[in-house]
Amino acid sequence: MPPTQRRLANAIRALAMDAVESANSGHPGMPMGMADAATALFTRHLKFDPADPHWPDRDRFILSAGHGSMLIYALLYLTGYDQPTLDDIKRFRQLGSPCAGHPENFELPGVEVTTGPLGQGLAMAVGMAIAERHLNATYGDDLVDHRTFVIAGDGDLMEGVNHESVGLAGHLKLGRLIVLWDDNKITIDGSTDLSRSEDVVARHAACGWQTLECDGLDGGKVSKALDQAVADERPTLIRCKTIIGYGAPNLQGTAATHGAALGKAEVEAARKELGLQPEEFAIPQDLLSGWRAAGQRGATARAQWHRRLQASGKKDQLLAQLGGQADDSWLKPHIDALVGDPKPVATRKASEMALEAINAVVPNTIGGSADLTGSNNTKTKTQEPLAADNYGGRYIYYGIREFGMAAAMNGMALHGGVIPYGGTFLVFTDYARPAIRLSALQRAKVIYVMTHDSIGLGEDGPTHQPIEHLQSLRAIPGLEVYRPADAVETAECWALALASAGPSVLALTRQNLPLVRTQATAENLSARGAYRLKPAEATRTVILLATGSEVEIALAAAGQLEGQGVGADVVSMPCTDRFDAQPAEYREDILPDVSNREILRVSIEAGTTFGWERYTGLHGLRIGIDRFGVSAPAKDAYDYFGLTPDAVAARVLDFMTQRGMR
Amino acid sequence: MPPTQRRLANAIRALAMDAVESANSGHPGMPMGMADAATALFTRHLKFDPADPHWPDRDRFILSAGHGSMLIYALLYLTGYDQPTLDDIKRFRQLGSPCAGHPENFELPGVEVTTGPLGQGLAMAVGMAIAERHLNATYGDDLVDHRTFVIAGDGDLMEGVNHESVGLAGHLKLGRLIVLWDDNKITIDGSTDLSRSEDVVARHAACGWQTLECDGLDGGKVSKALDQAVADERPTLIRCKTIIGYGAPNLQGTAATHGAALGKAEVEAARKELGLQPEEFAIPQDLLSGWRAAGQRGATARAQWHRRLQASGKKDQLLAQLGGQADDSWLKPHIDALVGDPKPVATRKASEMALEAINAVVPNTIGGSADLTGSNNTKTKTQEPLAADNYGGRYIYYGIREFGMAAAMNGMALHGGVIPYGGTFLVFTDYARPAIRLSALQRAKVIYVMTHDSIGLGEDGPTHQPIEHLQSLRAIPGLEVYRPADAVETAECWALALASAGPSVLALTRQNLPLVRTQATAENLSARGAYRLKPAEATRTVILLATGSEVEIALAAAGQLEGQGVGADVVSMPCTDRFDAQPAEYREDILPDVSNREILRVSIEAGTTFGWERYTGLHGLRIGIDRFGVSAPAKDAYDYFGLTPDAVAARVLDFMTQRGMR
Repeated sequence: MPPTQRRLANAIRALAMDAVESANSGHPGMPMGMADAATALFTRHLKFDPADPHWPDRDRFILSAGHGSMLIYALLYLTGYDQPTLDDIKRFRQLGSPCAGHPENFELPGVEVTTGPLGQGLAMAVGMAIAERHLNATYGDDLVDHRTFVIAGDGDLMEGVNHESVGLAGHLKLGRLIVLWDDNKITIDGSTDLSRSEDVVARHAACGWQTLECDGLDGGKVSKALDQAVADERPTLIRCKTIIGYGAPNLQGTAATHGAALGKAEVEAARKELGLQPEEFAIPQDLLSGWRAAGQRGATARAQWHRRLQASGKKDQLLAQLGGQADDSWLKPHIDALVGDPKPVATRKASEMALEAINAVVPNTIGGSADLTGSNNTKTKTQEPLAADNYGGRYIYYGIREFGMAAAMNGMALHGGVIPYGGTFLVFTDYARPAIRLSALQRAKVIYVMTHDSIGLGEDGPTHQPIEHLQSLRAIPGLEVYRPADAVETAECWALALASAGPSVLALTRQNLPLVRTQATAENLSARGAYRLKPAEATRTVILLATGSEVEIALAAAGQLEGQGVGADVVSMPCTDRFDAQPAEYREDILPDVSNREILRVSIEAGTTFGWERYTGLHGLRIGIDRFGVSAPAKDAYDYFGLTPDAVAARVLDFMTQRGMR
Repeated sequence: MPPTQRRLANAIRALAMDAVESANSGHPGMPMGMADAATALFTRHLKFDPADPHWPDRDRFILSAGHGSMLIYALLYLTGYDQPTLDDIKRFRQLGSPCAGHPENFELPGVEVTTGPLGQGLAMAVGMAIAERHLNATYGDDLVDHRTFVIAGDGDLMEGVNHESVGLAGHLKLGRLIVLWDDNKITIDGSTDLSRSEDVVARHAACGWQTLECDGLDGGKVSKALDQAVADERPTLIRCKTIIGYGAPNLQGTAATHGAALGKAEVEAARKELGLQPEEFAIPQDLLSGWRAAGQRGATARAQWHRRLQASGKKDQLLAQLGGQADDSWLKPHIDALVGDPKPVATRKASEMALEAINAVVPNTIGGSADLTGSNNTKTKTQEPLAADNYGGRYIYYGIREFGMAAAMNGMALHGGVIPYGGTFLVFTDYARPAIRLSALQRAKVIYVMTHDSIGLGEDGPTHQPIEHLQSLRAIPGLEVYRPADAVETAECWALALASAGPSVLALTRQNLPLVRTQATAENLSARGAYRLKPAEATRTVILLATGSEVEIALAAAGQLEGQGVGADVVSMPCTDRFDAQPAEYREDILPDVSNREILRVSIEAGTTFGWERYTGLHGLRIGIDRFGVSAPAKDAYDYFGLTPDAVAARVLDFMTQRGMR
């Protein structure tokens, strides 16, 4: 007789308790409460094959309540993935174990996304479900036909991003998204009654979701609900009524089981309660066999899928699309055209021009904007909206949901097959920042098109003018921030972003900028991060380092300095991170390591000067804005902050005088 | 015969059209669509007196849809506030005009909060409504009895923070919060159908709100709904069905009116349609008189309130509480006790100890946490929960709502009478960042208690370990970021935060730290931002600059360096901004401007090294973490990243050798 579902579930409970006890750190409550529901999902519904965690047509499982990480580690081990091993689990939360505190996609195949920051797992699942439907529209049910399942806790559902994600999923009728809500009525602070009175189910219903309720401790009932979820065309919320820490006889149902080891005595009591063996990490052979059998359920489906793929005329196309490489044949002719007909253009517009060329040859891109389409210039002519009645569309109207958009893009990128890009104003990267960080941590290839990148946006004023944003984004590890100076650099930066394995931010102007790169070059100069745009004519005494819209100002200021006999290089620096990664000789050539009295380094960026000491040195000059902005036309705002050729040249000359350089 | 409500409303429409036309920038659609509703509110319901915009018992009006700023500028002018003048309005969105692109509380009395970043006006209104009920619990209806009215657009309701705010308001049964939703079915991208399918009203009902619907273009009906809203004990959403740009005959109802001037011809046509005079900025005398009369409605109520205040035994107490000064008599005895009984303690615990002393003598504080009470150590023993059945409580269980918490705290602080502080993990400042920025822009006295401030949080791993956060927060203008090194510095930083006029972040450890300040000092040393904690014993060749938990490491490393004959200062730097603001002589004393070959400057902080060049210079040494963290016990994580006395001393010595200093 095969083991009962409950006994299978108790194997999860055992591993969760033991691993947390061993680490004396972690969250046993959620895995123990949701073990039955997870068992139902993994043994009866989820389409997966541990032998190939990357099988493109697998169902995606997202543990949005990532603190309950032992749940997924237990599931991966029990169903027969190569990793984690039991030893990995014994080293839960220890240095070097792939069983990290929270599930990380870069540690374990089978962990689709990195979760823990609440709300974002579910929000990324929305993106996965979008990507699936989009690819299905091209490749059909034979090749793309899978679902996204989520386990979410109260924290996931209380976070603001949940509203954005639930709204977006309902609007797009993502019927293949199924959320199991671990309704255990407990948060860290205690009862959910302390902070929440809402009718969660009614809220989902109001957003066009199917809502179901069941006893989450009864695998059979969860299974029935999952059947209903699969059968419906709407996204589904399944309210699983559970008891946190279920199986720990004295502590279950209390916040004490949420985020701490149960303690030796309670673990022993739980073991008895659950009918488990007394040894730590011991899984009875019949349970392991039962689990491994469940893990093999998907092998046939995978083999059949591969046969269909081999037989399909779209095989190469699908594999190429899943490969994620972006054709860059558009770049050279695009730049040739730009330099052939030099015109002032805002870099947001230049981005749109680049996108027209890109979207024509790169089928993977899915664009969008958080309700600033016309301002972000993210939609190209032939892009149709991706909507409930047209999943094949390549443009998403995300609504006023910056965070939801960014998280969905993470999910799309990690699903594979699509390269998402999306826009809002640079200042509103703050709204999306938790997801931008996760893009970087997860190495998700997401391109953030962030326009209105300075006081140059003008009259909207301080609330809309980014000051600290460029530097704050540059401070995030693994995020490439580009601020191109003209249409040519914009195209180059787009090419770099498309070629990157990780996320990029393009910071783009609202206002027009002249072409500063008037000659086509064989090399993508932006790839160096910084390069000498104009060498000094007189003996070099000054290096003006500028980014984006301030490069034009630097060039004009350099002209004035040369007029005074002061030789000035102008260095355009579209990407500081890339410059930092250049060989020492290159960096030395651009920024020679000599005293600032010999060669004065000056940074010019219409944002905070914080951090620019990295390039100017302590005795260099940093020209920027170290306060909030002003509401005024762009030109007046630039004047006000001394960001004009005249003012910059005058400050440089004054500074040189003070420093005894002239 | 007094002018009709519609004619009064048309005066708003006229000013909005004309100002946007004159600036050729701005958002006429919202003011024109909501003019009738706003007129009903301001002429019949809102309790205010333009003669005293700061009257504490006034109703608060929040224009959450801040892009429609001309609505509030028109209302303030028409009802008779000193500012804006008609000339100010004529200079809408121009440099120096208080009529900025978006309404800013620091520009105009009568603008209660700064809005524009969507969702936050309503979220701050929740805080205002909390503050009102809280003060009412102490001072009673005679002295505190007002409401908070909000005009919100679709953007406000789509943003994630709306979910948090609506949930919080429903949970706390904030019946004095009334939201007028401008339901015009238009966003920037076009119809709301492009991105939203939810039943907004049902969602609010699910959160315990009263929901009402009316024709928003009919002032009488809005007025009736407002009466119903006032009569109910629940917060109320009034769905005002409107037409964006109402009155512009050819453009109304379209996204074209949202964010751009209507154009001369359309303005002229609108003027005819609305029965207005042909001159720009001309308000017929009867309308101005009608408005001014409406502006005087509140004078009697204000006079009566002042009489009640004079007669009240609680007058001085209330005025002191509204004054916002925090008693600092707790500081000296508290520090004396700490140095008298030196014990290792986490700074989060030290913060709790300080709070025990503070909350006993400062009646204004309202604490809270986004569901991490026991981890943030934000709740002191005598604090009772502030809840629907106990508004007098001084602790708020905000739930898993970091952004909603931060925005509510902004609202509380700007309401006056309370000093809000609230906690989450430092890494989750990302979730609250849009509101933290608004704290700084608005000069709101909010104290962010951000614990688990480094890899020292240990096993929770990269998703929970802040890396870029300290520097990203320091980059925000006007935000003071404190990272105390021990319990004494923690108390000093609390005292500084309480004395500040603006917002502060306290970054606090999870892990224990020894007392490094073992002697009481007459001066608050943290007030300098950085100070010499330990002077070099041998000739000073090294200055170790450290913050927070790394000060202990710096001290031990300095000991090792001294053992090698290398004299090393240890500088503790709890607040970089404060140090930057010190006189040059002081800064020169701490960090002498000599070559790094003569005196090597070394920064030590368990976070990104980005930006530390400001203190080390280019040729100094920056010890930190320029990648994401690791999941491991705190000690192992510190070892892994070389943040130990041994590793630091070795790196410094190596660096000195490389640089030819030894």
